[in-house]
Amino acid sequence: MAAPVNPPRGMRDFLPADKARREHALGIIRNVYRSHGFDEIETPVVEDYARLHAGLGGDNEKLSFSILKRGIPPEALAAAAEAGDAEELADLGLRFDLTVPLTRFFASHRAELPPVFRSIQIAPVWRAERPQKGRYRQFVQADIDIIGESGLLAEIELITATSQALAALGLAGCVIRVNDRRILFGLLEHCGFASKMHDRALITIDKLDKIGVTGVVDELREADAEAAERMGEILTNVAPLVGSGEGGGSGIALAHDAIAEVLPAGAAEEGVANLVALGEALEGSLPEGVDVRFDPTLVRGMGYYTGTIFEIAHPGSGSSVGGGGRYDGMVGRFLGQDVPAVGFSIGFERVVDLIELPEATGPEAVALIADADVELADLLALKRALVDRGHRVRLEKRQKNMKALLARVASEGFTRVANVRAGASAADELEFRELS
Amino acid sequence: MAAPVNPPRGMRDFLPADKARREHALGIIRNVYRSHGFDEIETPVVEDYARLHAGLGGDNEKLSFSILKRGIPPEALAAAAEAGDAEELADLGLRFDLTVPLTRFFASHRAELPPVFRSIQIAPVWRAERPQKGRYRQFVQADIDIIGESGLLAEIELITATSQALAALGLAGCVIRVNDRRILFGLLEHCGFASKMHDRALITIDKLDKIGVTGVVDELREADAEAAERMGEILTNVAPLVGSGEGGGSGIALAHDAIAEVLPAGAAEEGVANLVALGEALEGSLPEGVDVRFDPTLVRGMGYYTGTIFEIAHPGSGSSVGGGGRYDGMVGRFLGQDVPAVGFSIGFERVVDLIELPEATGPEAVALIADADVELADLLALKRALVDRGHRVRLEKRQKNMKALLARVASEGFTRVANVRAGASAADELEFRELS
Repeated sequence: MAAPVNPPRGMRDFLPADKARREHALGIIRNVYRSHGFDEIETPVVEDYARLHAGLGGDNEKLSFSILKRGIPPEALAAAAEAGDAEELADLGLRFDLTVPLTRFFASHRAELPPVFRSIQIAPVWRAERPQKGRYRQFVQADIDIIGESGLLAEIELITATSQALAALGLAGCVIRVNDRRILFGLLEHCGFASKMHDRALITIDKLDKIGVTGVVDELREADAEAAERMGEILTNVAPLVGSGEGGGSGIALAHDAIAEVLPAGAAEEGVANLVALGEALEGSLPEGVDVRFDPTLVRGMGYYTGTIFEIAHPGSGSSVGGGGRYDGMVGRFLGQDVPAVGFSIGFERVVDLIELPEATGPEAVALIADADVELADLLALKRALVDRGHRVRLEKRQKNMKALLARVASEGFTRVANVRAGASAADELEFRELS
Repeated sequence: MAAPVNPPRGMRDFLPADKARREHALGIIRNVYRSHGFDEIETPVVEDYARLHAGLGGDNEKLSFSILKRGIPPEALAAAAEAGDAEELADLGLRFDLTVPLTRFFASHRAELPPVFRSIQIAPVWRAERPQKGRYRQFVQADIDIIGESGLLAEIELITATSQALAALGLAGCVIRVNDRRILFGLLEHCGFASKMHDRALITIDKLDKIGVTGVVDELREADAEAAERMGEILTNVAPLVGSGEGGGSGIALAHDAIAEVLPAGAAEEGVANLVALGEALEGSLPEGVDVRFDPTLVRGMGYYTGTIFEIAHPGSGSSVGGGGRYDGMVGRFLGQDVPAVGFSIGFERVVDLIELPEATGPEAVALIADADVELADLLALKRALVDRGHRVRLEKRQKNMKALLARVASEGFTRVANVRAGASAADELEFRELS
C-alpha cells in the first residue's frame, strides 16, 4: 500500500533538479514559439462540466475528473446520485486537454484578439487514466494553435515552429508524419465503405501499428467484407513505404508522385492537393534533421479533425511525442459561426525524458559555510553582497562530516564554496574554492 | 446571466498582454528567490481529500473544491451523499494553499532533500470564495519556506528574500509588520484570559483594523470582562504606535526599547527576545525603502503558527500583499517527528496589479505584411531568416485598412514592420520602418 505521504495516484512531485530541468525545457519551447509570432494565454484549470462533456473530447471526456457541486443539501445530492445525473453532482471538471478551453477562450474574447490568433498554451491537463510507465494523471501539454486562418500558411507555421522547438531541445531525428482526413475518407469511399461506417473504420485503421494489415482487414470485414479486401490491398502497398521512409524523405517528401503511387487516382483530390502544396512549402523551412513523411494510414484519435493531420515521432520514444491537425468545425460550436483552426500539441512528458540539458547557464552559484559563532548580521551582510553581485548564494552551517556536506552542495549545482569565520564581514576577503 | 463562453465563476482567462505581464513578474520573483539559495519544487494541484481536511487549513478547508470519486456505483454514491459522508463522495480535492502540500512533500522526500530545505513554490491554489473585486477562486501564490532550521536565520532569509523580490518588482514603500505568537499568548495570559479562550480572543484581536479598540473590547468582554478591560488598555497604548510607525521605523524597528514600551514587563520573554534579535539582524539586510515594524496586534489567521509571524503591507493595496510565519508543529503531523519550519507567501494577484513593468526586453519583434500573391515558400523563408537572427516574427496579410492593421500590430508589441512583395526572398532587402 502507498505511504500516506505520497502524491495522489498517478501524479508526481517534482524535486528541485526535476523542476529545474522541466522549467528549462519549457522555457526553450516558449521562446521558440514566441519568436515565431505566437502569444501565450492562460485559462483556468477547470471548465464547466457541460463543456467538458459536449462530445468534443472523444474518449478523454470519460477520463475527466469532476468537481463536486458545492452547497447542495445531502438529500438533493443523494437524489442526483441515484438518478445518475452527473451534471447535478458536478458543475465543474478539470480540463482533459487544452483545445476545448482554447475554443471557449476564443469565443469569449474574439473581439480583443487579432483576426488570425496564434496562441501558445503550456499547462497541465488531467485524465484519470490507468497509471503506467510514462503515463500520468496530471501531465503538461505544450500547444500552439492558429485560429482564423484557413490557408496552408497555418499548418506550415505550426509545423515549422514545432520542429524548431524540438530541434532547440536537441531532439534530433524527429519524423513528422502528415496526412489529410479527406484522403482517409476518400480511401474509405473508394473501397466502398458506407458513410456511416467511416468513423468505425478509421478507429480500426488507427490500430495498423499494433495489429498489422491482416488484423485491420479482419476487423474491417465486420463492417464490409468486400471493402475490407480493397483496403487491405491499398494498405499492403502503403505500409512498407511508410515504414521505410520511401515515398518519404525530407522536404519534398509529399510531392505529387509519391502520393500518386499509393493513392487510387481521383480519390480525395482536395486532400492530395493540400499535401502536395504543404510538401512544397515546407521545403527549406524545416530545421536540419527533421523529416516530413506522407503517411496515408495516419488517423489521429480525435473525431473533430477535418483536414491536415500530423504526428511527430522520435526514435527514442515508442509512441508519438506530439500531434495535431485542422479542426475547422469546432470553434463554430461555441460561436455559432465557422472559424478555421489548426493546432499542434507537444506531449511534454515524453519529450522531457528524451532531452539532454546543457550545463546550467544561470548566475554562478556559491555556498557559504558558516562557523557556529558567526554573527547572523555578518553572515547576512556577506550573503547580500554576493547576491548583489549576481550570485546565487546558499548558506550552510559547518558540520562534522564536511566531505558529505561539500558533496551534497556540489550535487545541488553550487560550483564554489567559502568558509565564513567569526568576524568576517567583507565579501572580498572570502576565499572561494572550486567544488568538483 | 453569464454568457456560456465565460470562464467558470470567479476564475479568469488571461489574454496575451496579461499573461506576459504575469510571467514577467513571476520570473522576477523566481530569480530573486533562486539567487537567495532557494530551490523550486512542484506538487500536483490535487491532494487527498483527507489531507485537505485534517484541520491544518483553518477556514480554507471549508472553501476547498472536492473531486468526485470515480467508479462508484450510483447506489453507493447516493448512500454516501445521504449519510453526508464527504470522504466517500470525494477522494481528492484542489489544494487551497501551498503549505499543506509542502509539508506532505517534505515528509515524502525528506531523504532526497538537504537537511535545511529552502523551497520555492509558485503555483495556483483554489478556494470557493464569494467572488469579489480582487478576490478569485483560482489565484497564484508565490511561497518560500525553510524547513529544518529552528534558528532566526530562517526568518531573516525569508524576510530579506521577499523584500528584495518586492523591491525588484518596483514596489516601493512596503512595510513588513512582525510579531510573535508567543507575545500574543503572553499578552492574553497577562490580561487574565483562560487558556481555552486564547484562540477565540486572537480571532477577535485580528479584527482590530476593522472594528477598532472599542469593538475588540466589546467582543472580548463576552469571553472575560475583566481581562477585556486590561487588553483594552494595552491596545489603546499600542494602536497609535503601530499606525504612526513610531516604535517602528526601519531596520532596528524592533529594538528592545520599542518593545518594552508597549509590553508589560516579563510577558512572553522568548517572543520578545526573538523579535529583538530579528530586528538587529535585519538591520543592513533589507533593501532601500522597506520598513519593518513591530506590531503586537498582528495575529495572522492560520492556527498553526507557533512563533514569529509577519505580514507585508503596501500603500497601494488595502489588504496585505503577503504574510507568513513559523509553523514548527505542522511537518511533524505527517512525519511523526517535529521539524521546524517557516514560510512567507506573496499574494501574487494583489502584487501584480501594483507593479509597473519596464519596456519589453525580449528580442525585437517585427511584423511582415505580405501581399496576397507572395509565394508561401518565399514568405516562410523570410520568416525563418529573421527568426534565425533572433527576431520575434509575426506574419500578417495586407488588408484594405492598413492603418488599423498597423495600429493593432503596434499594440501587440511589434516595433518594426516591412512589406513583402511577390518575388521577395532576401531578408536583407526588406525595408523595415518603425511603428510608433
